[in-house]
Amino acid sequence: MAEFSWKIKNKLKLSRARTGIISTPHGNIETPAFIFCATKAALKSFSTLDAKKNNTQIILSNTYHLMLQPGSNLISKHGGLHKFIGWDGPMLTDSGGFQIFSLGHGSVADEIKGRKINSNNKKSLLTLSEDGAIFKSYIDGKNHLLTPEKSIKVQRDLGADLIVVFDECTPFNVDKDYTFHSMLRSHRWANRSINAFNSKIEYEPKKGSAGFQEIYGIIQGGIYKDLREESIDFNQSKLDTFGIAIGGSLGSNKEQMKEIVKFTASKLNNNHPIHLLGIGDPIDIWEFVEYGIDTFDCVSPTRLARHGAALVKGKKSKINLKNLEFKESLRPIDENCDCYTCKNFTLSYLHHLFAAKEVLGLQLLTNHNIFFMNELMSTIRNSIQNNNFEKTRNEWLDR
Amino acid sequence: MAEFSWKIKNKLKLSRARTGIISTPHGNIETPAFIFCATKAALKSFSTLDAKKNNTQIILSNTYHLMLQPGSNLISKHGGLHKFIGWDGPMLTDSGGFQIFSLGHGSVADEIKGRKINSNNKKSLLTLSEDGAIFKSYIDGKNHLLTPEKSIKVQRDLGADLIVVFDECTPFNVDKDYTFHSMLRSHRWANRSINAFNSKIEYEPKKGSAGFQEIYGIIQGGIYKDLREESIDFNQSKLDTFGIAIGGSLGSNKEQMKEIVKFTASKLNNNHPIHLLGIGDPIDIWEFVEYGIDTFDCVSPTRLARHGAALVKGKKSKINLKNLEFKESLRPIDENCDCYTCKNFTLSYLHHLFAAKEVLGLQLLTNHNIFFMNELMSTIRNSIQNNNFEKTRNEWLDR
Repeated sequence: MAEFSWKIKNKLKLSRARTGIISTPHGNIETPAFIFCATKAALKSFSTLDAKKNNTQIILSNTYHLMLQPGSNLISKHGGLHKFIGWDGPMLTDSGGFQIFSLGHGSVADEIKGRKINSNNKKSLLTLSEDGAIFKSYIDGKNHLLTPEKSIKVQRDLGADLIVVFDECTPFNVDKDYTFHSMLRSHRWANRSINAFNSKIEYEPKKGSAGFQEIYGIIQGGIYKDLREESIDFNQSKLDTFGIAIGGSLGSNKEQMKEIVKFTASKLNNNHPIHLLGIGDPIDIWEFVEYGIDTFDCVSPTRLARHGAALVKGKKSKINLKNLEFKESLRPIDENCDCYTCKNFTLSYLHHLFAAKEVLGLQLLTNHNIFFMNELMSTIRNSIQNNNFEKTRNEWLDR
Repeated sequence: MAEFSWKIKNKLKLSRARTGIISTPHGNIETPAFIFCATKAALKSFSTLDAKKNNTQIILSNTYHLMLQPGSNLISKHGGLHKFIGWDGPMLTDSGGFQIFSLGHGSVADEIKGRKINSNNKKSLLTLSEDGAIFKSYIDGKNHLLTPEKSIKVQRDLGADLIVVFDECTPFNVDKDYTFHSMLRSHRWANRSINAFNSKIEYEPKKGSAGFQEIYGIIQGGIYKDLREESIDFNQSKLDTFGIAIGGSLGSNKEQMKEIVKFTASKLNNNHPIHLLGIGDPIDIWEFVEYGIDTFDCVSPTRLARHGAALVKGKKSKINLKNLEFKESLRPIDENCDCYTCKNFTLSYLHHLFAAKEVLGLQLLTNHNIFFMNELMSTIRNSIQNNNFEKTRNEWLDR
């Protein structure tokens, strides 16, 4: 099997938009690419076989959820996540940090929206120290300690191709001083993560090929540009991981988020594929690709489907099939879409499935949304390759 | 497209077990066959594409549910149910009678188990007269009149290949006198159904080929053999429909059910495919095939999947994947099963999906159960053809 590599193929002159290839032992990822969330080792209401048929390149699972249930040891006994979930393509796991801290600070992580959290459970983060984080399991209330070493151990057991250093994900409302000290600790945790990752004694490569796994660093610094610069320097000069993710708080509104991402991406060299955590809005993706982002992940395509929303081209970007205006429509979601759902079913049928509370409705809509996201990324890649990115984006938005 | 026909291929000497072919404009059904329930125009959590891949020959939808939502007129505008649900194979609709009466008598129809019915709604059957039945919609509480003519009109709109006369489905606890008079009324309703079906003025054949639809009569008579004989005579001599279904009460326990079905089937000539309503237990199917039943339908394969139960060969016939004994099992449901689920996933993974409340769990289990039922029917057909029915059944049960 192939080793890991990162190669830039095409670059635009007027922006930082680029196409590239991330090679992994489980195949290549053509970038810009979207990573679909199989949070608990399952895409929501969608098989990995259907994900592949709909041109999915890479999926991710969550360390936090899987260490609690069914446990990484059991997954390791299967030969890793790939075998466990029947997916032979590239895969990423996160470090668990995001969920612990987004829960721990009393807010509800996107991933578990829809779950009612009573006030007793809100503070699932019990202790945060130099060593790591002690948190309460949302399943059985037991206490767990997650450290950089433990996160890497779990991610080794899970055996995804791409893994991530353990970090603290700060909320947007903390001050600069907290952000600064948190960043420094996350840098120390990153060093410990890399040491654990490089330790061949306990975690001998085994599950895949030569290489087995590669790791991403995470840029911290919140909304403070000087801190971002310090973290960029640390990640590029000291850690020099295979990939780099932009993490931490991106501010409290979209404009601030764009400014921080743009600033951060502009300071990065070309040696690493760049991942932006948690972004899935198509219109945002067009913009962030322009800033130089290579990969995105978000639960939104499958979550929107569960709520009856279909992704569509153009500025409105989605339509809700539960809306009565679709009750008698004999047209598909998009007449030009080649997905199984659009080729075979009317809006009226999909509306009926949601009205009748048939699970098939969200399956067919998930099918469309996953196909749609992969088509979007393919359109973006082609437009970079053909040097007509702006024109293509404007046409796409004006649909 | 082909016209309708019914042909017996092989017959056993020691029992009434037989193989045959029901030809329809949408293809052939090799019998004995299992008909899967797409009650509200959707197989539960399963696409028609996947149903086809898993060797499904024929599916059915329910007139009662579809006339209330989304309405048969809307489905007709799509060109019929086949187009609406993306299924190009043979299809059957029932008459609506079963649901109206199973609800109307205060019990809850199998099809809507899981739905909480409060006591106000229990009596959805408001009036039963010579004309038909007035019932209250479970969706919006509005009153609806269903007559033989209306049932045929709705089934014409839906456009399934095989349709069924409108009847009263009596509960098992009514006396012989009620059963007798109900049977006579159902016979009169059957005549009115056939008259409506044969009326070419309002319902010109259009949706499929020459023929377009064929119709099944229903044998009434409850648990009373003399009434069964009278209904058999009526159905075979007077109505002479394309197919015949065994309906009405089959008693209050399995032994009585078997006796009534055996008695009824034994009196039938070979001119019609024989359908047994609502039976899906594999062990029962082996037995009823021996009595001469050609087709079965039941919600059980998909319902069992929703509750975590996988169909397996042998006398126990199912296992529940939620059971803790499967938490760490690295084996599939059945190592000899060729379905996508068994070829790719362990019991441990399936157990995890149910524990994590992932919809994918019931999808993968539905996949197995549908494949399993089609394999069962194929095994039965082959054993009749190869004249080793008993031997095959015993091997199957001893697994």
